[in-house]
Parts: sequence; C-alpha cells; structure tokens
Amino acid sequence: MSIIGSGNVATAVSIALSKSGINILEIFSPNINNAKLLAEKVNSRYVKELGGLCADTDLFLIATPDKEVNNVIHKLPQNQSIVAHTSGSHALVHSGINQQRSGVFYPLQTFTKDKEVDFKEIPVCIEASDENTSKLLFQLAKSISNNVVTLNSEQRQYLHLTAVAVNNFTNLLYNHAFTLLKEQNIDFALLRPLIRETALKITDINPADAQTGPARRNDTQTINKHLELLDKHPKFKEIYSLLSNQIIKKYHG
Amino acid sequence: MSIIGSGNVATAVSIALSKSGINILEIFSPNINNAKLLAEKVNSRYVKELGGLCADTDLFLIATPDKEVNNVIHKLPQNQSIVAHTSGSHALVHSGINQQRSGVFYPLQTFTKDKEVDFKEIPVCIEASDENTSKLLFQLAKSISNNVVTLNSEQRQYLHLTAVAVNNFTNLLYNHAFTLLKEQNIDFALLRPLIRETALKITDINPADAQTGPARRNDTQTINKHLELLDKHPKFKEIYSLLSNQIIKKYHG
Repeated sequence: MSIIGSGNVATAVSIALSKSGINILEIFSPNINNAKLLAEKVNSRYVKELGGLCADTDLFLIATPDKEVNNVIHKLPQNQSIVAHTSGSHALVHSGINQQRSGVFYPLQTFTKDKEVDFKEIPVCIEASDENTSKLLFQLAKSISNNVVTLNSEQRQYLHLTAVAVNNFTNLLYNHAFTLLKEQNIDFALLRPLIRETALKITDINPADAQTGPARRNDTQTINKHLELLDKHPKFKEIYSLLSNQIIKKYHG
Repeated sequence: MSIIGSGNVATAVSIALSKSGINILEIFSPNINNAKLLAEKVNSRYVKELGGLCADTDLFLIATPDKEVNNVIHKLPQNQSIVAHTSGSHALVHSGINQQRSGVFYPLQTFTKDKEVDFKEIPVCIEASDENTSKLLFQLAKSISNNVVTLNSEQRQYLHLTAVAVNNFTNLLYNHAFTLLKEQNIDFALLRPLIRETALKITDINPADAQTGPARRNDTQTINKHLELLDKHPKFKEIYSLLSNQIIKKYHG
C-alpha cells in the first residue's frame, strides 16, 4: 500500500500499520521534508509527485486535509488499486475515472505528531464500495485495532461531528482555563484529576446523570459571580453564559 | 468533627475521612433520610436539627449548597470549634458571632453518590483564618489526599470557575453528542477512547498545542457541513458555531 499525506493522521496510521507488519511501499506529501521523515520512520520510499507513485499497489490511502481528497484522486497514476481516505466527513469516493474500488478508513482519535498512541482501542470506521474492498479494509484495520466498525457516510459524518464536540471543543475549554489560571498564578495541573475523572465518569454513567455544578443546581448566585470574574475575558464569558443557560434549561426549564 | 450536609460532596468527603480513621461524631442534613444513610456508612450519629449538634467537636465541616453556608453558620450551637466549608466559590467565613477560627476545605473533583472515587490524587484547597487552623485543616486534608494546596479566596474562585468549564461544560458536550448519536443508532462508546485521550493528552502537551480539528485547520467546508447536520439541534448548533469561531479566530485571526 501507499500513503498520501504526512500530517498527524498519516503519521499515526503509517506508524501503526508499519509496526503491525504491513509493507508501506511509498509516501507522497506536498511537504517533501515531512514525507521524507515519515518514509524513514516506516521504512518506506518517498515520492516527489503524486503522478510518480507506483500504480502497482493494493491500496492508496489518502490521509490529507479533506479539501485535498478529490484533487489527489484525480492526480493519482492510472491504477487498479483500492483508493480509500481517512476523513470523517468526506463521503465515500466514487470516482468513475480510474477507480472501481473505493473505501473509507477513518480512525476516530486525536493525533499529534510527537505523541504516539496505542492504536488497539482506537475505533476504525470502515466503509467500502463493495464486499471485497470492505473485507480487505476491515482486515487491514483489524491488524492495528481491536475496535473496527462499519458505518455508512452519513453515520460517519455524525460521529465526526460529535468527535469535534468532545475533543476540539473540550480542548478549547481547557485552553480558556489554562490562560485564566496562569494569570492568577494557579497551576493548571490542579485541574488534571478533575479532567480525568470527567472523561472516565461517563464510562459508567450516562452523561445526563453525570451532570453536576452551579448550573445543574440552578445556583444563579455562583453563576453570576463567575460571569463577573470573566469580565476581562469576553470569549470565555460568552461560552460560560451560553452553556450554563443550556444546562439550566435542560434540568430546570 | 461533625459534618453538615449529605449531598455528593458531604458523602464523598465523609467516606474518605472515615476510611482514613478520622472519627466523625455527627451528621446533620435537612434531608433526614440521606443523613441517616450517610451516618450509617461512616459509623456516625445523625442529628435532626442543626441546633442539636454537639458543640464539643474540633471541627464543623459545612458541605451544603453554597447559598446555605451562611444560614448554617448562624444556626450552629454556640461553640469554640473550627467552622469550615467545602465550597469553591464561597469566601472564607468570618463570623464574628461565635467563631474566631474559620476555614475552607475545598476538594476539587466531581462527585456522584453512587461512584466512589480515589481521594489520594484529588487536590484539596485549604484556606484558614489563622496559622493553627490552617495547620489542622492541612493535616486533615493530608490524611485523605496527596495533593493539598493553600489558596486564597480569590484564587479558589477562579479555580472553581475553570473547574466548571472543564467538567460541567465538557459534560454538556458529552450530553449533546450522546443524544445525537443515539438518534443515528451509533454507539456513544465509540467516542470513549477519544474522550479519554483528550483528557490525557494535556498532561504532556499544553492545551494550545493540543488543539486539532476542522476549526483549527480553518476548514470551513467541514464546519458548514456540520452546522447543516445540526439544523434540527439548535442548541448544539449554537455551541458548535460559537466555539468553532473562537478556535478559528485564535489560530487564524
């Protein structure tokens, strides 16, 4: 197989596949330095042009930003391979030009280059144009993860959307907290046990039952005090206000 | 010592203290059934009236909703004890009537009655009216936690505010995700590895560097697609829109 991309997802997936014994033939990325680095890591070749990729491979896995996916497909060399992408929101690719067999290989996780993750628990969501392709992608996913599922494009979009909420938005909340605590000379590390427990709690308890805090208790005195403390942080304040009101309406509305 | 309250915090703190060998003399709560249950758990007596609490105790620990704290203090029997509360946002109590020695014993965690937590890592934030009281509360906290810090009232308020953000607001995001996935027949459990990694990632990486996702990449195509998918979920949509815009402005503004 060959990989297109050298970003966070391309890197994490390539390393996991390579470790499980999959042979990665070539890597292409418009960022040649990144492609070179990744190729070294996974004992592969790097290629300087999309059209220069070897056509004789079982699978082209496109792990680029979403908006590049279509562009990449049209610039691949003429081939009989499976063409799959790793995007959560991009539909299954039906390219009538070269490809009959297409698929999706979407790993549901947040990847950062310098932090290797254990792939075994990471859900990999598979979709394919046909039964054989599905089988092959499923098998590939199984080689790195114990958590492989089949989802259609619409389901995958919804899953991706909720992943944005529980990861990207939660991380923005961490960010606001970090900045505010730094200003007050308070160590952000004090929040870590709470952050961990917040994440672990919903393994045992439904999120609706796990809700606590001033808004859950409709404690407007505390909420107003917090909003005052945020007077110099209008962005954090806007989030505080919107989310508190939603919690109050949900439980007391 | 005696405990006033029988809610989530009162229960968790009482159980941890009792397990560490601290003798809990009496429990009072307006909810007599809860008080009775808790008293049984920690091998204590329960009392039906605040004024009926025995005055001869080293410490009254008030673990009630914030708005009840002042009320409770004024109804305690005449005493020479330390009076402390567990509130994140309530200032240090300076009651000139009976109490010279007052304090704060604020455990920074989300507590739910049916889920026992390991107290050792939970930060306990101490504040006191005087050196001796501080020492005693510090010692008490140390008996259940390895993470005891001294914070003044203002710092504690800010810490509490950020705790609301990283716990209560994050949990609301889980809630929206849960509801949406249920509608689409997708198992919420698929999100758990991502949720865990989101929480663990910021142990190694600053939240600003941990940010990923469509808004971080300024991928308006995906963001607009997600907003469309949320047309029937205006509350989730409002959060999605506000937080995505903040991330875009932060990284691309």
